[in-house]
Amino acid sequence: VRASSAATTDAPVQAIALDAFPIFDPRPIFALAEEFYPGRGAQLSRAWRTCQFEYTWLRTVAGRYADFWQVTEDALVFAAKTLKLDLDSRRRARLMNAYLELKVWPDVPQTLKSLKASGIRLAFLSNFTSRMLEAGINNSGLEGMFEHVLSTDSVKQFKPSPRAYQMAVDAFGLKTESIAFAAFAGWDAAGAKWFGFPTVWVNRLQSPAEELSATPDVTCNH
Amino acid sequence: VRASSAATTDAPVQAIALDAFPIFDPRPIFALAEEFYPGRGAQLSRAWRTCQFEYTWLRTVAGRYADFWQVTEDALVFAAKTLKLDLDSRRRARLMNAYLELKVWPDVPQTLKSLKASGIRLAFLSNFTSRMLEAGINNSGLEGMFEHVLSTDSVKQFKPSPRAYQMAVDAFGLKTESIAFAAFAGWDAAGAKWFGFPTVWVNRLQSPAEELSATPDVTCNH
Repeated sequence: VRASSAATTDAPVQAIALDAFPIFDPRPIFALAEEFYPGRGAQLSRAWRTCQFEYTWLRTVAGRYADFWQVTEDALVFAAKTLKLDLDSRRRARLMNAYLELKVWPDVPQTLKSLKASGIRLAFLSNFTSRMLEAGINNSGLEGMFEHVLSTDSVKQFKPSPRAYQMAVDAFGLKTESIAFAAFAGWDAAGAKWFGFPTVWVNRLQSPAEELSATPDVTCNH
Repeated sequence: VRASSAATTDAPVQAIALDAFPIFDPRPIFALAEEFYPGRGAQLSRAWRTCQFEYTWLRTVAGRYADFWQVTEDALVFAAKTLKLDLDSRRRARLMNAYLELKVWPDVPQTLKSLKASGIRLAFLSNFTSRMLEAGINNSGLEGMFEHVLSTDSVKQFKPSPRAYQMAVDAFGLKTESIAFAAFAGWDAAGAKWFGFPTVWVNRLQSPAEELSATPDVTCNH
Protein backbone atom coordinates (compact mmCIF):
# COMPACT_ATOMS: atom_id res chain seq x y z
CA VAL A 1 0.00 0.00 0.00
CA ARG A 2 2.00 2.97 -1.26
CA ALA A 3 -0.17 6.01 -0.76
CA SER A 4 1.92 8.31 -2.93
CA SER A 5 1.26 6.23 -6.03
CA ALA A 6 -2.48 6.55 -5.59
CA ALA A 7 -2.57 10.30 -6.03
CA THR A 8 -3.61 10.69 -9.64
CA THR A 9 -5.09 14.15 -9.25
CA ASP A 10 -3.56 17.43 -8.23
CA ALA A 11 -4.73 17.02 -4.64
CA PRO A 12 -2.24 15.04 -2.56
CA VAL A 13 -3.64 12.06 -0.68
CA GLN A 14 -4.04 12.98 2.98
CA ALA A 15 -5.88 9.91 4.23
CA ILE A 16 -6.51 6.26 3.42
CA ALA A 17 -9.75 4.40 3.99
CA LEU A 18 -9.28 0.65 4.07
CA ASP A 19 -11.54 -2.30 3.62
CA ALA A 20 -11.12 -4.92 6.38
CA PHE A 21 -9.31 -7.59 4.32
CA PRO A 22 -6.23 -5.67 3.19
CA ILE A 23 -5.57 -5.65 6.95
CA PHE A 24 -7.05 -8.89 8.32
CA ASP A 25 -5.97 -12.24 6.91
CA PRO A 26 -9.04 -14.44 6.23
CA ARG A 27 -7.06 -17.63 5.62
CA PRO A 28 -7.63 -19.07 9.14
CA ILE A 29 -11.36 -19.17 8.27
CA PHE A 30 -10.60 -21.17 5.14
CA ALA A 31 -8.29 -23.46 7.14
CA LEU A 32 -11.02 -24.14 9.71
CA ALA A 33 -13.44 -25.01 6.91
CA GLU A 34 -10.90 -27.52 5.60
CA GLU A 35 -10.38 -28.95 9.09
CA PHE A 36 -14.14 -29.51 9.46
CA TYR A 37 -14.70 -30.77 5.90
CA PRO A 38 -11.45 -32.41 4.70
CA GLY A 39 -11.09 -32.02 0.94
CA ARG A 40 -14.16 -29.77 0.71
CA GLY A 41 -12.94 -26.73 2.65
CA ALA A 42 -11.88 -24.64 -0.33
CA GLN A 43 -15.20 -25.34 -2.03
CA LEU A 44 -17.16 -24.35 1.07
CA SER A 45 -15.10 -21.20 1.61
CA ARG A 46 -15.61 -20.16 -2.01
CA ALA A 47 -19.37 -20.79 -1.94
CA TRP A 48 -19.69 -19.08 1.44
CA ARG A 49 -17.81 -16.00 0.32
CA THR A 50 -19.71 -15.76 -2.97
CA CYS A 51 -23.05 -16.01 -1.23
CA GLN A 52 -22.01 -13.62 1.53
CA PHE A 53 -21.40 -10.79 -0.91
CA GLU A 54 -24.37 -11.68 -3.10
CA TYR A 55 -26.60 -11.34 -0.04
CA THR A 56 -25.15 -7.92 0.81
CA TRP A 57 -25.94 -6.71 -2.71
CA LEU A 58 -29.36 -8.35 -2.93
CA ARG A 59 -30.41 -6.86 0.39
CA THR A 60 -29.10 -3.43 -0.54
CA VAL A 61 -30.83 -3.47 -3.94
CA ALA A 62 -34.10 -4.60 -2.35
CA GLY A 63 -33.85 -2.24 0.62
CA ARG A 64 -33.95 -5.22 3.02
CA TYR A 65 -30.92 -4.61 5.19
CA ALA A 66 -29.57 -7.14 7.67
CA ASP A 67 -26.16 -6.62 9.24
CA PHE A 68 -23.01 -8.32 7.96
CA TRP A 69 -22.88 -10.80 10.83
CA GLN A 70 -26.39 -12.01 9.97
CA VAL A 71 -25.66 -12.07 6.25
CA THR A 72 -22.45 -14.00 6.85
CA GLU A 73 -24.27 -16.64 8.88
CA ASP A 74 -27.12 -16.88 6.35
CA ALA A 75 -24.54 -17.32 3.60
CA LEU A 76 -22.76 -20.07 5.53
CA VAL A 77 -26.02 -21.95 5.98
CA PHE A 78 -26.86 -21.60 2.28
CA ALA A 79 -23.37 -22.62 1.13
CA ALA A 80 -23.36 -25.73 3.33
CA LYS A 81 -26.85 -26.66 2.14
CA THR A 82 -25.87 -26.21 -1.52
CA LEU A 83 -22.82 -28.43 -1.06
CA LYS A 84 -24.78 -30.93 1.05
CA LEU A 85 -22.37 -30.54 3.97
CA ASP A 86 -23.68 -31.22 7.47
CA LEU A 87 -23.42 -27.95 9.37
CA ASP A 88 -24.13 -28.75 13.01
CA SER A 89 -24.44 -25.93 15.53
CA ARG A 90 -20.91 -26.43 16.89
CA ARG A 91 -19.22 -26.09 13.50
CA ARG A 92 -21.52 -23.24 12.55
CA ALA A 93 -20.58 -21.32 15.70
CA ARG A 94 -16.86 -22.08 15.32
CA LEU A 95 -16.81 -20.92 11.68
CA MET A 96 -18.68 -17.73 12.57
CA ASN A 97 -16.42 -17.05 15.54
CA ALA A 98 -13.40 -17.31 13.27
CA TYR A 99 -14.52 -13.88 12.04
CA LEU A 100 -13.92 -12.55 15.55
CA GLU A 101 -10.44 -14.11 15.75
CA LEU A 102 -8.85 -12.56 12.66
CA LYS A 103 -5.31 -11.21 12.82
CA VAL A 104 -3.35 -9.01 10.46
CA TRP A 105 -1.41 -10.06 7.35
CA PRO A 106 2.34 -10.10 8.13
CA ASP A 107 3.19 -6.88 6.26
CA VAL A 108 0.48 -4.79 7.95
CA PRO A 109 2.02 -3.43 11.19
CA GLN A 110 5.11 -1.98 9.49
CA THR A 111 3.11 -0.51 6.58
CA LEU A 112 0.59 1.18 8.86
CA LYS A 113 3.36 2.57 11.07
CA SER A 114 5.15 4.06 8.05
CA LEU A 115 1.95 5.62 6.76
CA LYS A 116 1.16 7.16 10.13
CA ALA A 117 4.73 8.42 10.45
CA SER A 118 4.36 10.19 7.11
CA GLY A 119 1.24 11.98 8.36
CA ILE A 120 -1.36 9.94 6.49
CA ARG A 121 -4.65 9.61 8.37
CA LEU A 122 -6.20 6.14 8.48
CA ALA A 123 -9.71 4.70 8.70
CA PHE A 124 -11.46 1.39 8.25
CA LEU A 125 -14.43 1.51 5.88
CA SER A 126 -15.89 -1.96 5.91
CA ASN A 127 -19.06 -4.02 5.67
CA PHE A 128 -17.96 -5.67 8.92
CA THR A 129 -20.06 -4.70 11.91
CA SER A 130 -18.36 -2.54 14.54
CA ARG A 131 -18.07 -5.61 16.78
CA MET A 132 -16.24 -7.53 14.06
CA LEU A 133 -13.90 -4.61 13.33
CA GLU A 134 -13.14 -3.96 16.99
CA ALA A 135 -12.40 -7.66 17.57
CA GLY A 136 -9.85 -7.66 14.75
CA ILE A 137 -8.25 -4.45 16.00
CA ASN A 138 -7.94 -5.86 19.52
CA ASN A 139 -6.58 -9.22 18.34
CA SER A 140 -3.80 -7.45 16.48
CA GLY A 141 -2.79 -4.69 18.86
CA LEU A 142 -3.92 -2.00 16.42
CA GLU A 143 -5.73 0.10 19.02
CA GLY A 144 -5.33 3.81 18.26
CA MET A 145 -4.02 3.20 14.75
CA PHE A 146 -7.26 4.16 13.02
CA GLU A 147 -8.75 7.62 13.40
CA HIS A 148 -12.15 6.26 12.31
CA VAL A 149 -13.58 2.75 12.38
CA LEU A 150 -16.44 3.05 9.90
CA SER A 151 -18.93 0.23 9.47
CA THR A 152 -21.49 0.39 6.69
CA ASP A 153 -23.89 -0.78 9.40
CA SER A 154 -24.28 2.93 10.22
CA VAL A 155 -25.90 3.67 6.85
CA LYS A 156 -27.67 0.29 6.44
CA GLN A 157 -26.37 -0.08 2.91
CA PHE A 158 -23.44 -2.23 1.87
CA LYS A 159 -20.66 -1.32 -0.54
CA PRO A 160 -20.57 -0.39 -3.41
CA SER A 161 -23.40 1.97 -2.44
CA PRO A 162 -22.20 5.58 -2.76
CA ARG A 163 -23.67 6.19 0.71
CA ALA A 164 -21.22 3.66 2.12
CA TYR A 165 -18.12 5.27 0.56
CA GLN A 166 -19.40 8.74 1.50
CA MET A 167 -18.86 7.83 5.17
CA ALA A 168 -15.09 8.30 4.76
CA VAL A 169 -15.53 11.72 3.15
CA ASP A 170 -17.78 12.83 6.00
CA ALA A 171 -15.59 11.36 8.75
CA PHE A 172 -12.30 12.82 7.49
CA GLY A 173 -13.83 16.12 6.34
CA LEU A 174 -11.64 15.92 3.24
CA LYS A 175 -12.37 16.02 -0.48
CA THR A 176 -12.99 12.66 -2.16
CA GLU A 177 -9.84 13.01 -4.26
CA SER A 178 -7.72 13.47 -1.11
CA ILE A 179 -8.75 10.08 0.29
CA ALA A 180 -7.26 6.90 -1.14
CA PHE A 181 -9.30 3.74 -0.80
CA ALA A 182 -7.58 0.39 -0.28
CA ALA A 183 -9.73 -2.50 -1.49
CA PHE A 184 -9.24 -6.24 -1.16
CA ALA A 185 -11.92 -7.38 -3.64
CA GLY A 186 -11.91 -6.36 -7.28
CA TRP A 187 -15.56 -5.29 -7.07
CA ASP A 188 -14.77 -3.02 -4.10
CA ALA A 189 -11.91 -1.45 -6.05
CA ALA A 190 -14.35 -0.79 -8.91
CA GLY A 191 -16.91 0.65 -6.49
CA ALA A 192 -14.38 2.97 -4.85
CA LYS A 193 -13.12 4.12 -8.25
CA TRP A 194 -16.70 4.74 -9.44
CA PHE A 195 -17.26 6.79 -6.31
CA GLY A 196 -14.23 8.93 -7.11
CA PHE A 197 -11.53 7.77 -4.68
CA PRO A 198 -7.95 7.33 -5.86
CA THR A 199 -8.00 3.54 -5.50
CA VAL A 200 -5.43 0.97 -4.53
CA TRP A 201 -6.38 -2.64 -5.18
CA VAL A 202 -4.56 -4.78 -2.61
CA ASN A 203 -5.06 -7.93 -4.67
CA ARG A 204 -3.64 -10.42 -2.20
CA LEU A 205 -5.43 -13.39 -3.78
CA GLN A 206 -4.20 -12.53 -7.31
CA SER A 207 -7.74 -12.39 -8.64
CA PRO A 208 -8.44 -11.34 -12.21
CA ALA A 209 -9.72 -7.76 -12.63
CA GLU A 210 -13.49 -7.33 -12.82
CA GLU A 211 -15.14 -6.30 -16.09
CA LEU A 212 -16.81 -3.23 -14.61
CA SER A 213 -15.23 -0.41 -16.63
CA ALA A 214 -13.37 0.97 -13.61
CA THR A 215 -9.62 0.48 -13.27
CA PRO A 216 -7.84 0.98 -9.93
CA ASP A 217 -5.06 3.58 -9.97
CA VAL A 218 -2.65 1.15 -8.35
CA THR A 219 -2.76 -2.64 -8.07
CA CYS A 220 -0.55 -4.48 -5.57
CA ASN A 221 -0.18 -8.20 -6.13
CA HIS A 222 1.19 -9.24 -2.75
CA VAL B 1 -47.47 -22.57 -12.64
CA ARG B 2 -50.86 -22.87 -10.97
CA ALA B 3 -52.11 -19.35 -10.38
CA SER B 4 -54.86 -20.35 -8.01
CA SER B 5 -52.41 -21.70 -5.46
CA ALA B 6 -50.55 -18.42 -5.30
CA ALA B 7 -53.46 -16.46 -3.89
CA THR B 8 -52.65 -16.26 -0.21
CA THR B 9 -54.61 -13.09 0.44
CA ASP B 10 -58.29 -12.29 0.06
CA ALA B 11 -57.72 -10.66 -3.33
CA PRO B 12 -57.86 -13.20 -6.16
CA VAL B 13 -54.90 -13.25 -8.51
CA GLN B 14 -55.89 -11.51 -11.74
CA ALA B 15 -52.52 -11.40 -13.47
CA ILE B 16 -49.14 -13.09 -13.52
CA ALA B 17 -45.82 -11.38 -14.12
CA LEU B 18 -43.10 -13.79 -15.18
CA ASP B 19 -39.35 -13.71 -15.20
CA ALA B 20 -37.85 -14.80 -18.54
CA PHE B 21 -36.53 -18.20 -17.46
CA PRO B 22 -39.71 -19.90 -16.27
CA ILE B 23 -40.60 -19.48 -19.99
CA PHE B 24 -37.31 -19.74 -21.91
CA ASP B 25 -35.08 -22.79 -21.53
CA PRO B 26 -31.45 -21.69 -21.03
CA ARG B 27 -29.98 -25.18 -21.47
CA PRO B 28 -28.94 -24.63 -25.14
CA ILE B 29 -26.56 -21.93 -23.87
CA PHE B 30 -25.00 -24.41 -21.44
CA ALA B 31 -24.77 -27.01 -24.23
CA LEU B 32 -22.97 -24.56 -26.51
CA ALA B 33 -20.48 -23.77 -23.72
CA GLU B 34 -19.79 -27.50 -23.40
CA GLU B 35 -19.40 -27.84 -27.19
CA PHE B 36 -16.81 -25.04 -27.19
CA TYR B 37 -15.00 -26.16 -24.01
CA PRO B 38 -15.44 -29.94 -23.68
CA GLY B 39 -15.49 -30.96 -20.02
CA ARG B 40 -15.47 -27.33 -18.87
CA GLY B 41 -18.85 -26.16 -20.14
CA ALA B 42 -20.77 -26.62 -16.89
CA GLN B 43 -18.06 -24.76 -14.99
CA LEU B 44 -18.09 -21.88 -17.48
CA SER B 45 -21.89 -21.69 -17.48
CA ARG B 46 -21.97 -21.60 -13.69
CA ALA B 47 -19.26 -18.91 -13.41
CA TRP B 48 -20.87 -16.88 -16.20
CA ARG B 49 -24.31 -16.99 -14.62
CA THR B 50 -22.97 -16.15 -11.14
CA CYS B 51 -21.03 -13.17 -12.44
CA GLN B 52 -23.91 -12.03 -14.64
CA PHE B 53 -26.22 -11.58 -11.67
CA GLU B 54 -23.49 -10.22 -9.41
CA TYR B 55 -22.84 -7.49 -11.98
CA THR B 56 -26.54 -6.58 -12.14
CA TRP B 57 -26.59 -6.15 -8.35
CA LEU B 58 -23.24 -4.35 -8.10
CA ARG B 59 -24.25 -1.88 -10.80
CA THR B 60 -27.66 -1.29 -9.23
CA VAL B 61 -26.16 -0.75 -5.75
CA ALA B 62 -23.55 1.64 -7.14
CA GLY B 63 -25.96 3.46 -9.45
CA ARG B 64 -23.82 2.49 -12.46
CA TYR B 65 -26.35 0.94 -14.78
CA ALA B 66 -25.44 -0.91 -17.96
CA ASP B 67 -28.05 -2.98 -19.78
CA PHE B 68 -28.38 -6.74 -19.38
CA TRP B 69 -26.84 -7.50 -22.78
CA GLN B 70 -23.71 -5.55 -21.80
CA VAL B 71 -23.62 -7.08 -18.32
CA THR B 72 -24.03 -10.56 -19.79
CA GLU B 73 -21.11 -10.05 -22.16
CA ASP B 74 -18.92 -8.52 -19.42
CA ALA B 75 -19.72 -11.52 -17.21
CA LEU B 76 -18.82 -13.96 -19.98
CA VAL B 77 -15.45 -12.26 -20.46
CA PHE B 78 -14.78 -12.31 -16.71
CA ALA B 79 -15.85 -15.95 -16.30
CA ALA B 80 -13.64 -17.11 -19.18
CA LYS B 81 -10.69 -15.12 -17.81
CA THR B 82 -11.17 -16.56 -14.32
CA LEU B 83 -11.24 -20.10 -15.70
CA LYS B 84 -8.35 -19.38 -18.11
CA LEU B 85 -10.46 -20.37 -21.12
CA ASP B 86 -9.58 -18.84 -24.47
CA LEU B 87 -12.61 -16.78 -25.54
CA ASP B 88 -12.01 -15.75 -29.14
CA SER B 89 -14.41 -13.34 -30.83
CA ARG B 90 -16.25 -16.11 -32.70
CA ARG B 91 -17.07 -18.12 -29.56
CA ARG B 92 -17.89 -14.95 -27.66
CA ALA B 93 -20.39 -13.87 -30.35
CA ARG B 94 -21.91 -17.36 -30.63
CA LEU B 95 -22.40 -17.66 -26.86
CA MET B 96 -23.98 -14.21 -26.68
CA ASN B 97 -26.22 -14.91 -29.68
CA ALA B 98 -27.49 -18.03 -27.93
CA TYR B 99 -29.42 -15.57 -25.75
CA LEU B 100 -31.30 -14.45 -28.88
CA GLU B 101 -32.11 -18.03 -29.92
CA LEU B 102 -33.87 -19.23 -26.77
CA LYS B 103 -37.05 -21.28 -27.03
CA VAL B 104 -39.68 -22.22 -24.46
CA TRP B 105 -39.55 -25.11 -21.99
CA PRO B 106 -41.81 -27.94 -23.24
CA ASP B 107 -44.66 -27.33 -20.75
CA VAL B 108 -44.96 -23.62 -21.49
CA PRO B 109 -47.37 -23.30 -24.48
CA GLN B 110 -50.11 -25.40 -22.88
CA THR B 111 -49.74 -23.71 -19.46
CA LEU B 112 -49.91 -20.22 -20.91
CA LYS B 113 -52.95 -21.13 -23.05
CA SER B 114 -54.79 -22.51 -20.01
CA LEU B 115 -54.00 -19.40 -17.97
CA LYS B 116 -55.20 -17.09 -20.72
CA ALA B 117 -58.35 -19.17 -21.18
CA SER B 118 -59.12 -18.74 -17.48
CA GLY B 119 -58.89 -14.94 -17.85
CA ILE B 120 -55.48 -14.45 -16.23
CA ARG B 121 -53.55 -11.52 -17.68
CA LEU B 122 -49.86 -12.16 -18.46
CA ALA B 123 -46.69 -10.09 -18.58
CA PHE B 124 -42.96 -10.60 -18.74
CA LEU B 125 -41.00 -8.75 -16.05
CA SER B 126 -37.38 -9.47 -16.74
CA ASN B 127 -33.84 -8.12 -16.62
CA PHE B 128 -33.58 -9.12 -20.30
CA THR B 129 -33.51 -6.15 -22.66
CA SER B 130 -36.58 -5.68 -24.88
CA ARG B 131 -34.59 -7.04 -27.81
CA MET B 132 -33.76 -10.23 -25.90
CA LEU B 133 -37.38 -10.68 -24.77
CA GLU B 134 -38.83 -10.05 -28.25
CA ALA B 135 -36.36 -12.49 -29.80
CA GLY B 136 -37.50 -15.24 -27.42
CA ILE B 137 -41.16 -14.46 -28.04
CA ASN B 138 -40.67 -14.61 -31.81
CA ASN B 139 -38.62 -17.81 -31.69
CA SER B 140 -41.42 -19.54 -29.81
CA GLY B 141 -44.53 -18.25 -31.55
CA LEU B 142 -45.71 -16.49 -28.39
CA GLU B 143 -46.67 -13.24 -30.15
CA GLY B 144 -49.77 -11.74 -28.55
CA MET B 145 -49.62 -13.99 -25.49
CA PHE B 146 -48.25 -11.28 -23.15
CA GLU B 147 -50.19 -8.10 -22.48
CA HIS B 148 -46.97 -6.40 -21.34
CA VAL B 149 -43.33 -7.15 -22.09
CA LEU B 150 -41.58 -5.30 -19.27
CA SER B 151 -37.82 -4.96 -19.24
CA THR B 152 -36.08 -3.51 -16.19
CA ASP B 153 -34.09 -1.57 -18.78
CA SER B 154 -36.93 0.98 -18.60
CA VAL B 155 -36.13 1.85 -14.99
CA LYS B 156 -32.34 1.32 -15.21
CA GLN B 157 -32.36 -0.80 -12.06
CA PHE B 158 -32.23 -4.57 -11.97
CA LYS B 159 -34.27 -6.90 -9.78
CA PRO B 160 -34.70 -7.17 -6.81
CA SER B 161 -35.06 -3.37 -6.80
CA PRO B 162 -38.60 -2.44 -5.75
CA ARG B 163 -38.69 -0.08 -8.74
CA ALA B 164 -38.27 -3.08 -11.04
CA TYR B 165 -41.17 -5.05 -9.53
CA GLN B 166 -43.32 -1.90 -9.41
CA MET B 167 -43.38 -1.93 -13.23
CA ALA B 168 -45.92 -4.78 -13.20
CA VAL B 169 -48.18 -2.95 -10.75
CA ASP B 170 -48.13 0.16 -12.94
CA ALA B 171 -48.58 -1.72 -16.22
CA PHE B 172 -51.52 -3.87 -15.06
CA GLY B 173 -53.12 -1.12 -12.96
CA LEU B 174 -53.83 -3.76 -10.30
CA LYS B 175 -53.02 -4.05 -6.62
CA THR B 176 -49.74 -5.78 -5.76
CA GLU B 177 -51.59 -8.63 -4.07
CA SER B 178 -53.61 -9.31 -7.24
CA ILE B 179 -50.47 -9.99 -9.28
CA ALA B 180 -48.62 -13.27 -8.89
CA PHE B 181 -44.94 -13.28 -9.74
CA ALA B 182 -43.33 -16.36 -11.28
CA ALA B 183 -39.60 -16.51 -10.56
CA PHE B 184 -36.92 -18.87 -11.87
CA ALA B 185 -34.14 -17.96 -9.42
CA GLY B 186 -34.50 -18.31 -5.67
CA TRP B 187 -33.24 -14.75 -5.14
CA ASP B 188 -35.89 -13.42 -7.54
CA ALA B 189 -38.57 -15.32 -5.65
CA ALA B 190 -37.32 -13.71 -2.42
CA GLY B 191 -37.28 -10.29 -4.05
CA ALA B 192 -40.83 -10.63 -5.39
CA LYS B 193 -42.04 -11.85 -2.01
CA TRP B 194 -40.30 -8.96 -0.23
CA PHE B 195 -42.02 -6.61 -2.68
CA GLY B 196 -45.40 -8.06 -1.77
CA PHE B 197 -46.37 -10.26 -4.72
CA PRO B 198 -47.94 -13.65 -4.15
CA THR B 199 -44.94 -15.59 -5.43
CA VAL B 200 -44.50 -18.84 -7.34
CA TRP B 201 -41.00 -20.20 -7.49
CA VAL B 202 -40.66 -22.18 -10.72
CA ASN B 203 -37.58 -24.02 -9.45
CA ARG B 204 -36.73 -25.90 -12.63
CA LEU B 205 -33.10 -26.47 -11.61
CA GLN B 206 -34.05 -27.87 -8.16
CA SER B 207 -31.93 -25.27 -6.38
CA PRO B 208 -31.93 -25.03 -2.59
CA ALA B 209 -33.98 -22.16 -1.15
CA GLU B 210 -32.10 -18.95 -0.38
CA GLU B 211 -31.53 -17.88 3.23
CA LEU B 212 -33.20 -14.50 2.76
CA SER B 213 -36.13 -14.72 5.20
CA ALA B 214 -38.70 -14.72 2.40
CA THR B 215 -40.54 -17.90 1.48
CA PRO B 216 -42.40 -18.21 -1.83
CA ASP B 217 -46.10 -19.03 -1.50
CA VAL B 218 -45.78 -21.90 -3.98
CA THR B 219 -42.72 -23.80 -5.17
CA CYS B 220 -42.87 -25.96 -8.31
CA ASN B 221 -40.03 -28.44 -8.76
CA HIS B 222 -40.41 -29.31 -12.42
